[in-house]
Amino acid sequence: MPFKSYLEAINKEFENHSYGQNPVELYEPIEYIMSLGGKRLRPLLTLMSANLWLYNWQKAIKPAMAVEVFHNFTLMHDDIMDQAPLRRGQQTVHEKWNINTAILSGDVMLVAAYDLLLLVEDRHFKQVVRRFNKTAAEVCEGQQLDMVFAKKKDVKKEDYIEMIRLKTSVLLGFAMELGGIVADADAESVDLLNEIGVNLGIGFQLNDDILDVYADPEKFGKQVGGDIIENKKTWLLLDALEKSVGSEEAKALEGWLKKKKFDANEKVEAIKAIYDKLEIKAEAEAEAKKYFRKATDALNKLAVSEDKKQVLRLFAEQLENREN
Amino acid sequence: MPFKSYLEAINKEFENHSYGQNPVELYEPIEYIMSLGGKRLRPLLTLMSANLWLYNWQKAIKPAMAVEVFHNFTLMHDDIMDQAPLRRGQQTVHEKWNINTAILSGDVMLVAAYDLLLLVEDRHFKQVVRRFNKTAAEVCEGQQLDMVFAKKKDVKKEDYIEMIRLKTSVLLGFAMELGGIVADADAESVDLLNEIGVNLGIGFQLNDDILDVYADPEKFGKQVGGDIIENKKTWLLLDALEKSVGSEEAKALEGWLKKKKFDANEKVEAIKAIYDKLEIKAEAEAEAKKYFRKATDALNKLAVSEDKKQVLRLFAEQLENREN
Repeated sequence: MPFKSYLEAINKEFENHSYGQNPVELYEPIEYIMSLGGKRLRPLLTLMSANLWLYNWQKAIKPAMAVEVFHNFTLMHDDIMDQAPLRRGQQTVHEKWNINTAILSGDVMLVAAYDLLLLVEDRHFKQVVRRFNKTAAEVCEGQQLDMVFAKKKDVKKEDYIEMIRLKTSVLLGFAMELGGIVADADAESVDLLNEIGVNLGIGFQLNDDILDVYADPEKFGKQVGGDIIENKKTWLLLDALEKSVGSEEAKALEGWLKKKKFDANEKVEAIKAIYDKLEIKAEAEAEAKKYFRKATDALNKLAVSEDKKQVLRLFAEQLENREN
Repeated sequence: MPFKSYLEAINKEFENHSYGQNPVELYEPIEYIMSLGGKRLRPLLTLMSANLWLYNWQKAIKPAMAVEVFHNFTLMHDDIMDQAPLRRGQQTVHEKWNINTAILSGDVMLVAAYDLLLLVEDRHFKQVVRRFNKTAAEVCEGQQLDMVFAKKKDVKKEDYIEMIRLKTSVLLGFAMELGGIVADADAESVDLLNEIGVNLGIGFQLNDDILDVYADPEKFGKQVGGDIIENKKTWLLLDALEKSVGSEEAKALEGWLKKKKFDANEKVEAIKAIYDKLEIKAEAEAEAKKYFRKATDALNKLAVSEDKKQVLRLFAEQLENREN
């Protein structure tokens, strides 16, 4: 089963899914954000994981959707906190409606995620909720850390990795673990699935940081250099700050970070030049590779046939080499 | 077991409960809002309900706390939406910290509520979560309706009752139902408990509306007339608007509602005088009594000994006759 069929099945289920009717002011924004699309990475991972065992993967679609609904709930609330005007090229919910609507529709989306989890077998439900709760709390912790780091002076690269582990990666870990649980996988395999997902997630986010600077603008789909313009403390910036200590590059970097008024292109080019001089790209790629390698190692350990693993391997490769 | 012992047990458990440690920015606001106190009405109802059957009520404390944590999550988010500066006489979370903190700490509180529900027996867990999800979504629907009504012209009294049923009462219904479920009560009794709770909740909220206008300021603990000053469409105002159609009182009422600048005391006294002339207080009291009566009727039907029911009866009476 190639993952395009999974994706079609997920999107079809989403089209037919109702979150609620009244009042429309509460439920319309949910339909809206869910209709904006996205890669549906998380539910795909759930279905691919479930399909590693002898299991009718279609029974995992609803629980898989819970992960995607939860993810979009965090986007709806994060966009308020980040005052983001756009999401996937469209107006964010708090822009299209207002902040109150985005808060409340988000809240009910979190409940909707738990509602979709109800559709796992009774014998798995408590374990699923326990793990989901842990994951959901960690995602909130990651978002809080992200906001703390934005104002903090001395953020270390390892702090940053821990932040993205919480904010992004644990949910990919849970998505895969969930697939294992519903397919009655043994405990060791369930743990390995989590490990694969978490490491894919960290690699994925590091690639995001790299693509923000080095993507081909025609393939990327959003503005290249967005993180640089906003002084976002990505792994690349933290690495550059660390490597440049005491050098001229450090002064130039600090100068750009402090500048309130600047030409966006000029700033992006200048900081990119500093990154190039410090060879940041290669280091970031090596760092990302490290996590993709950890994911592959865990996948290798998984006690299922190589044949079954093939789809996940292919998917992980595509994640590692993506251009947008 | 008088309910003061329940209250002590609940508050002691809350003092010892940890929601999480890191980052402190995320968890401190939760400790803060939970420390502001309140009547702990909902967990009390859970424990009293559980104790109607042969059941060690102490086993219901953690699930009972889930209802209180959920309630306080809704307060944290509602206070943002209502731009409320104070909660129980203290700064609201978004005032003391900021809006982002109140959004995110609220989110993790909702997860914390599900975490406390995990502590029911395995055989009850799915039923509890299913009913909790339904209730939580309804509470959000009620809050959305409340915001819609604030801007809507022709709100009817029955729309208002439906709004407070969702926003306030269904959670009291769930709190009682939860007590029954954990104590292995039969399905009919569980439904009756829900019915008692919902009707107590509507009566409770109608009393709130009455107290806002007619409470003894020395006993009330907050500003009398707050709803009047804000043009809040309470049952009393809706009843007055309905009863006064075409009369002089209607003109006077509309005049006050439109006035942008006014002396607060003068407005409160003037609208109170209109209410008095239209005999709104007696009607509101009769309406509240109707729901307390429904609660008592359901309590009467409950197949447990009168002896066991006594605490709940006393508690319902205190709710009906409360002065703050």
